Amino acid sequence: MEIPKMMKAWVLGDPMELTLTEKPVPEPGRNEVLVKIDAVAICATDLEIIENGPPALIQGGLPFNKNFTPGHEYMGRVAKLGPGVDSYKVGDRVAVEIHAGCGQCENCRKGEYTACLNYGLNYEGHDKGHRANGFTTDGGFAEYAVNNVNTLCHIGDNVTDEEATLIVTAGTAMYGLDSLGGLLAGQGIIISGPGPIGLMGVAVAKSIGANPVILSGTRDNRLELGKKLGADYTINVRNENVVDAVKRLTNGEGVNYVLECSGAPNAINESAQMIKRGGKICLAAFPKKPVEVDVASLVRNNVSMVAIRGEGKSAVHRAASLITEHRFEASLIHTHTFDFEDLLEALRYSRERIDDAIKVVVKMPK
Amino acid sequence: MEIPKMMKAWVLGDPMELTLTEKPVPEPGRNEVLVKIDAVAICATDLEIIENGPPALIQGGLPFNKNFTPGHEYMGRVAKLGPGVDSYKVGDRVAVEIHAGCGQCENCRKGEYTACLNYGLNYEGHDKGHRANGFTTDGGFAEYAVNNVNTLCHIGDNVTDEEATLIVTAGTAMYGLDSLGGLLAGQGIIISGPGPIGLMGVAVAKSIGANPVILSGTRDNRLELGKKLGADYTINVRNENVVDAVKRLTNGEGVNYVLECSGAPNAINESAQMIKRGGKICLAAFPKKPVEVDVASLVRNNVSMVAIRGEGKSAVHRAASLITEHRFEASLIHTHTFDFEDLLEALRYSRERIDDAIKVVVKMPK
Amino acid sequence: MEIPKMMKAWVLGDPMELTLTEKPVPEPGRNEVLVKIDAVAICATDLEIIENGPPALIQGGLPFNKNFTPGHEYMGRVAKLGPGVDSYKVGDRVAVEIHAGCGQCENCRKGEYTACLNYGLNYEGHDKGHRANGFTTDGGFAEYAVNNVNTLCHIGDNVTDEEATLIVTAGTAMYGLDSLGGLLAGQGIIISGPGPIGLMGVAVAKSIGANPVILSGTRDNRLELGKKLGADYTINVRNENVVDAVKRLTNGEGVNYVLECSGAPNAINESAQMIKRGGKICLAAFPKKPVEVDVASLVRNNVSMVAIRGEGKSAVHRAASLITEHRFEASLIHTHTFDFEDLLEALRYSRERIDDAIKVVVKMPK
Amino acid sequence: MEIPKMMKAWVLGDPMELTLTEKPVPEPGRNEVLVKIDAVAICATDLEIIENGPPALIQGGLPFNKNFTPGHEYMGRVAKLGPGVDSYKVGDRVAVEIHAGCGQCENCRKGEYTACLNYGLNYEGHDKGHRANGFTTDGGFAEYAVNNVNTLCHIGDNVTDEEATLIVTAGTAMYGLDSLGGLLAGQGIIISGPGPIGLMGVAVAKSIGANPVILSGTRDNRLELGKKLGADYTINVRNENVVDAVKRLTNGEGVNYVLECSGAPNAINESAQMIKRGGKICLAAFPKKPVEVDVASLVRNNVSMVAIRGEGKSAVHRAASLITEHRFEASLIHTHTFDFEDLLEALRYSRERIDDAIKVVVKMPK
Repeated sequence: MEIPKMMKAWVLGDPMELTLTEKPVPEPGRNEVLVKIDAVAICATDLEIIENGPPALIQGGLPFNKNFTPGHEYMGRVAKLGPGVDSYKVGDRVAVEIHAGCGQCENCRKGEYTACLNYGLNYEGHDKGHRANGFTTDGGFAEYAVNNVNTLCHIGDNVTDEEATLIVTAGTAMYGLDSLGGLLAGQGIIISGPGPIGLMGVAVAKSIGANPVILSGTRDNRLELGKKLGADYTINVRNENVVDAVKRLTNGEGVNYVLECSGAPNAINESAQMIKRGGKICLAAFPKKPVEVDVASLVRNNVSMVAIRGEGKSAVHRAASLITEHRFEASLIHTHTFDFEDLLEALRYSRERIDDAIKVVVKMPK
Repeated sequence: MEIPKMMKAWVLGDPMELTLTEKPVPEPGRNEVLVKIDAVAICATDLEIIENGPPALIQGGLPFNKNFTPGHEYMGRVAKLGPGVDSYKVGDRVAVEIHAGCGQCENCRKGEYTACLNYGLNYEGHDKGHRANGFTTDGGFAEYAVNNVNTLCHIGDNVTDEEATLIVTAGTAMYGLDSLGGLLAGQGIIISGPGPIGLMGVAVAKSIGANPVILSGTRDNRLELGKKLGADYTINVRNENVVDAVKRLTNGEGVNYVLECSGAPNAINESAQMIKRGGKICLAAFPKKPVEVDVASLVRNNVSMVAIRGEGKSAVHRAASLITEHRFEASLIHTHTFDFEDLLEALRYSRERIDDAIKVVVKMPK
Repeated sequence: MEIPKMMKAWVLGDPMELTLTEKPVPEPGRNEVLVKIDAVAICATDLEIIENGPPALIQGGLPFNKNFTPGHEYMGRVAKLGPGVDSYKVGDRVAVEIHAGCGQCENCRKGEYTACLNYGLNYEGHDKGHRANGFTTDGGFAEYAVNNVNTLCHIGDNVTDEEATLIVTAGTAMYGLDSLGGLLAGQGIIISGPGPIGLMGVAVAKSIGANPVILSGTRDNRLELGKKLGADYTINVRNENVVDAVKRLTNGEGVNYVLECSGAPNAINESAQMIKRGGKICLAAFPKKPVEVDVASLVRNNVSMVAIRGEGKSAVHRAASLITEHRFEASLIHTHTFDFEDLLEALRYSRERIDDAIKVVVKMPK
Repeated sequence: MEIPKMMKAWVLGDPMELTLTEKPVPEPGRNEVLVKIDAVAICATDLEIIENGPPALIQGGLPFNKNFTPGHEYMGRVAKLGPGVDSYKVGDRVAVEIHAGCGQCENCRKGEYTACLNYGLNYEGHDKGHRANGFTTDGGFAEYAVNNVNTLCHIGDNVTDEEATLIVTAGTAMYGLDSLGGLLAGQGIIISGPGPIGLMGVAVAKSIGANPVILSGTRDNRLELGKKLGADYTINVRNENVVDAVKRLTNGEGVNYVLECSGAPNAINESAQMIKRGGKICLAAFPKKPVEVDVASLVRNNVSMVAIRGEGKSAVHRAASLITEHRFEASLIHTHTFDFEDLLEALRYSRERIDDAIKVVVKMPK
């Protein structure tokens, strides 16, 4: 594969100022490959980063305007191998996950690489090799990106480019379900919030045997989609009290698990009422403000909560397996496609949910 | 052992109305024994029950005034065996734990008996055999009590009566530490709140190798006691910012675990700042009101929280082993002793912390 | 439901001496129900018990001939409730699992009821309430049986009687898979031995997302059936070296897990060569004699092995959910049906695998 | 710290041919440091490697004679930092652990770095960065060695050089105990085999609350030492049947755990008889030949076995904490000290257990 010196890339200047420019094609380092990007999906986090700047820059105090390229849900083909790479070869089709841990810190050594203690440290003078492409290192709104081999996963020809961009979302949902203990077959689960992670949560939970899978949300069209992806029941929380509805659907018993993807202010308290004593809640959404939590009721009922960031524990690989086997149709959440040059319009569709947009995918010219 | 027909027992009438009366000595059923009580310690929950009524009555809507005997931290000798009991014999010295699950529900079958789904169901027409002595079934402010054999643990002669009443408190602390994963040796932990559970948490954590063990609280005398029980450092949160102090004591890194026993309004948020990414918090206290929680920061940092009720997973047996081996001096938290007849005065010492009271023990005439 | 005083039951006299007789209908005790049996499947363990006597008798030294009724894979309807039972009502259709723990021992309190430390203790003078119906307490080759409510699971009308008898087998397979950690989605597994548990292992593993699922065995017709139940690949070990075959099917990498259901003498050593370093083996079969194990290679490769007895951790309930949802066709392993009176012939079919018999079911006259 | 170009190092030629020579001081790469070695202890594995060659060479087919330096239980001071290292500084005193995983494979990403799938791949053309110093990469019988920062642990001034060489042994024992689930406080454990790992197993188990700790072996002096390190009981298997003895010491109940460090032919079968049903065995020794195992009894009793290689899960750091706090006197197993030049004699003492040698330490001239 011939690789040019320069590539087209969208870069972030001041907030909301995303411009298409040219950048040098980056060079893969040790254990890294260069990926020629074919398609990239837009995530709500991309919108936030474009509005507020990449997280590490804010935390680390670096200047906002550093020529940063966002985008983290991409796929493509391996274009070049860095030193020490032999598990991929040039031309391989790959999907990506976001986080490559430093591999050295206490958490990475425990396998918790999305909680890497050297998060964001990958720049001159602070080089621990951590990557969170599209967050703290350059991402996928560009022709090429560098990926640590840890963040790649092979995909077969029976997966379309668009589907492949959704693998990391399904992987995040699977990581959330893993964090609940993994034994979901025959156990009831509520998924709150039919955003992309919630909808993939429905699909993955059903694929691994959860029963019943109940999806709650505010938009009927999203809930309908949830049914197609495997929800046994849906609850529109605008129409009925969600706790009452769950009790009704479960003989008054409640369920074992909640995958909280809504970020709603009362989500934890409601979750605690929807689960059985000893139940578990996975917190996968970021409420915009602190929320009021009735901790005493959590204690009284031995509830545990695990908060997840991203897509750890190789869950992306396992989600890719489900998608490759077409255990569910991930592409149902893909609603719109734009050309790479039209990224700004694609972002607008995503931000404003124009035409009921869920996942908007941007494709490179082949 | 000769057993009378009637016994002295304190019973709860209206709120705060505790009177010494006579009751029939109860009969142990299948898998149960009758315990002749020698000593009973007072717990903050006893004070609450006396003030507000036993929890099951409130939840189940039964009348408050039912001749109920509180008290759950007792010890004594086996006086009589119910049918099917062969692991205890009359005369055995025993400490107790609180919860005997129904043994049938989904949670009991998983070993989570303090989260029994038939909690409180042990009365005419709703008899699932659940016991939480002193909470939903008659407790230890009496001469005798019935205990499921599951709630007994043998104690040796090298443990005093007073120490033996503290075993369930140490067991609760150990259950909390177990819920953090159990691998505490060489890991840092903050224990917030130097009440009896917090102080026993310090002692148990240090006994199983945690390092450093940091205790935070507001009262210097309690913190001093924490040092005697094994705390490497103490922080008086009235004198310095607890998050800053923890960072200072841990090279800016924070610790792996928090055992939250304070119930303070900002406890979860502060805990989240005192632990490393991926850290775990055990919630063991009941805040009186809902608290504000910055959930987004929990998610960003992959924090998990496990809330515990009581003393599950046979932790009481394991705590008893530490106390029997005198790995720490549990009796350091025992401050006052009263006669059984003087229970009301004992409760007042405990409630008002008169004379720096921590654990107040009531003893039976021998 | 009218219940007679006497019932027809097959009882075991001397080895291999099974006779149809009359017995009193048993009375359900506390937390027990009486089940009117509709169908019962034959398991290899039944054949062994009929040949060698029930296990507790051998271990406990009781006389062989005690009027014992074998049979443990049955289903039926609730005929009568014992005291304290409110989660079932007369007429409910139920499948069963085998083990009801004593609920008191250290293992039962941890949720490991199939490893009950009071195994078999359920007789005059040794009454801990343990039941292993068809093993140590009367089983299902009879018109009625008593079951602890812990060993029941509700079944819906969309499950046939025959299918319902297979739920405990699927539950055993699921317990085995649970013991491997539960995160099977997208992970490779070998199932060795296409007996009923192995075949259900294939079906359950595939249902919860394992990939690839590889079945090895010696009989092509069984392997074919494995494919219908979800095996991605099969290996006839008479035709090719199983280790070579696994390596060929997995790019030389091996798989993560083995569910060992063959009991073959070299099974552990081969398993160790078929899995990746750090892999896990579930031992679910009983080799007839001690086998040679290359322990050094297990240590060198950080292999763990978990041996399971029976169907713990409520796995039967979760398997029932998969069967109720028809995630796989359990009935594919049901090959023959006989009348209750023809049990001896049914056993012969099962023992001699006449007409490729796998699961032979005996039905009661309705 | 001034670093010479050349250093003294013992290198392995043909089997048993260890010669003192000069080698270039190696250069630390990314995430690596150069360690100036102060002391190194001799392990039984060193003796094997010297006799049979380093494991990777045998497996990989490389020539035996490659100028390889064995030795893996060393300590010293950081002499030079490789790129990207900021958690250590020149002059820091450090102990080491053996395994640095590749950080990329499925196992390393799960935190199981001693089971790295790229074990031994760290040479021209096969460079995955895996290190097992003294096994597959140059070790500590030299003046300097390169260590990945993952394999270092800070040590304080209250730990002697000799003690510090024992940290990795204690870490291996702790990893074994961790693999048993970690909740050892108040639980019984047998440690079989009073070699260095077994003796450290006794010390660590007792330090984290195990009770009783029972050590079995064949040599009274070693068993005596075990008592000093924390064993509650010892059993000389030449004098009494070990299974009987364990039953006698535990009221016939057996223990929960076995840490098998003997490698004896009947060790697994005996372990299975010494533990309760549902118990766990950690296999930490390498029997020289395949052993006969009664698998059926393991299955009947729900026994699990976990085999460990080396010192994973950061257990070395946690063991270092116990040693730093002097929870036990690791130095009790240190029996002899030799000068670096006298390594051959030191090895002879270790191999032939001259003068009851346990841990023989070689010290560098300061």
